[in-house]
Amino acid sequence: VNQRLTIAAHVLGLLAHHERSGRGTMTSEELAESVGTSPVVVRRVMAQLTRAGLLVTRRGVGGGAVVARAPEQITLRDAYDAVTAHEGELLGRHSHANGTSCPIAPVLAEYLNELYSDAEEALLRTLEGVTVAAMTREVIDRLERRARLDSAHR
Amino acid sequence: VNQRLTIAAHVLGLLAHHERSGRGTMTSEELAESVGTSPVVVRRVMAQLTRAGLLVTRRGVGGGAVVARAPEQITLRDAYDAVTAHEGELLGRHSHANGTSCPIAPVLAEYLNELYSDAEEALLRTLEGVTVAAMTREVIDRLERRARLDSAHR
Repeated sequence: VNQRLTIAAHVLGLLAHHERSGRGTMTSEELAESVGTSPVVVRRVMAQLTRAGLLVTRRGVGGGAVVARAPEQITLRDAYDAVTAHEGELLGRHSHANGTSCPIAPVLAEYLNELYSDAEEALLRTLEGVTVAAMTREVIDRLERRARLDSAHR
Repeated sequence: VNQRLTIAAHVLGLLAHHERSGRGTMTSEELAESVGTSPVVVRRVMAQLTRAGLLVTRRGVGGGAVVARAPEQITLRDAYDAVTAHEGELLGRHSHANGTSCPIAPVLAEYLNELYSDAEEALLRTLEGVTVAAMTREVIDRLERRARLDSAHR
């Protein structure tokens, strides 16, 4: 997971915001510069978002990647699922303790795997509660509050 | 995190259960065999649990590692904290976007770091809700239910 979710959230937020403010799309070079990573990494994440149906690429003049749905309808859990392809197990899984003589081991392994799924689900519900639109709005609010504080202090 | 939390939960559960049933402690070799991993790995996790105050080592005849508190008072979050030493960030953190020209980047990074903390806290609360005693009880219940089913089918 590491940086991929952060880059995905950043890319979705920037593209949605750019489009809303009538500035069209951004190239992967521009996105990479803003995110502070390499265009190669950004393109890899964009490919994952496209495969998950969160981005579409428009062809032709003024073309490029745009968000596929309204930013109110994309949650950070969608972004998480796109970059992890559900393979992402945050907590370890217990291999089913083959070849141990202890009768408790496989049952404990089964119990812990269920608990880890519950714990991960709790984490993912938090991401599900945040849409790209809400994230963008909050970030812009913070920027504006700070700009007002700055000018008040001048 | 991966397997360390699972091994820690397993070790705590086995030691607590063994002690309760009056069979004293277990060596790291016995624990390793039950968990299905190597004694070296088990000893490393036991050292972390000891450092966190969850295990104590009794010296002398019949000595060895025992749980330091009642299993009702040790949660899987304690075990998690012991094996990760709070270093364990499950979700990526956004480095604070140094050297990007985009004014949004650092504020978005800050926002996402807060959200990731909230999401991880939700996961950890799930682990906090489960004590070693509750885990052990549930595992023994399952074993007994299956034993009953087995004998009913015979």
